[in-house]
Amino acid sequence: MRMIDIEPLTRAAFADFGDVVDAEGAEWIDINQGFAQRVNDLALVDVAEEGGSVNISLFTARARPQPIAITMMEQHPLGTQLFFPLQNAPWLVLVCTDPADRQSYRAFRAAGRQGVNYAKGVWHHPLLVLADHERFIVVDRAGPGCNLQEMWLDAGQVLHLVPRS
Amino acid sequence: MRMIDIEPLTRAAFADFGDVVDAEGAEWIDINQGFAQRVNDLALVDVAEEGGSVNISLFTARARPQPIAITMMEQHPLGTQLFFPLQNAPWLVLVCTDPADRQSYRAFRAAGRQGVNYAKGVWHHPLLVLADHERFIVVDRAGPGCNLQEMWLDAGQVLHLVPRS
Repeated sequence: MRMIDIEPLTRAAFADFGDVVDAEGAEWIDINQGFAQRVNDLALVDVAEEGGSVNISLFTARARPQPIAITMMEQHPLGTQLFFPLQNAPWLVLVCTDPADRQSYRAFRAAGRQGVNYAKGVWHHPLLVLADHERFIVVDRAGPGCNLQEMWLDAGQVLHLVPRS
Repeated sequence: MRMIDIEPLTRAAFADFGDVVDAEGAEWIDINQGFAQRVNDLALVDVAEEGGSVNISLFTARARPQPIAITMMEQHPLGTQLFFPLQNAPWLVLVCTDPADRQSYRAFRAAGRQGVNYAKGVWHHPLLVLADHERFIVVDRAGPGCNLQEMWLDAGQVLHLVPRS
């Protein structure tokens, strides 16, 4: 069984794949007469290609059996895709530069207060949660054109993820 | 003391002010080989005016003393502004069509799984939470131009909100 190591999710480690949506280390600005603070510009949302517009969605997901068999990767050539968790629970992010090259895979453990925004064309696995009924808000693209490419792995290429608690 | 009644937040009641971001009653679509479902198109994000772009932010807010004194309303003439809670806790939404006309105010109790997206130019109160340290993800506009108008109320115009638990 070919296993993938799971790293902590940090901006530096994820920089080639998109944005980490996370207030950690960012500058909090006082607003609303002192009753709130905000952190700006956490992700580059880029969905305008070929007449696209922003699509605000809600997802609910369930956990896959472990070890998680990675049989398919996908990418969105026309727009970014942002996931942010609505519960404070860790989840997994799996990306690669070439689905056929196992050395190119990187797996990350996101904290419950971390989202990610996949850059256009970045190969990633569909949402990976560690418990059922987890919810996310998603900011991606609606519009004309084909914005989904899937690559299914041969049986001999299948990789596995073993989340540790 | 001039009080404002608080209504449940529904799409119909909020239609003149923007979108309710809520999966309730929407169509869940099976995706990700059955491991997730999504609901699409929950808000019209409109931030392109005068060269604007999408700004993804995180907010943290604290509760105001009750009864909540409403002394100021604001609006964003160049872009929509979406708030979605990151905890499953109710919060308040206050809007009006004319800050000087107390009859035009509407207050809503949003459930912890409900966000709102204020339409461009809609008068609203800054974020109103019922407990400290509540967090929201916000989708609004970055870019040139003046996108904030505030209207401060005279002492005799101040209204009050009394949230009921």
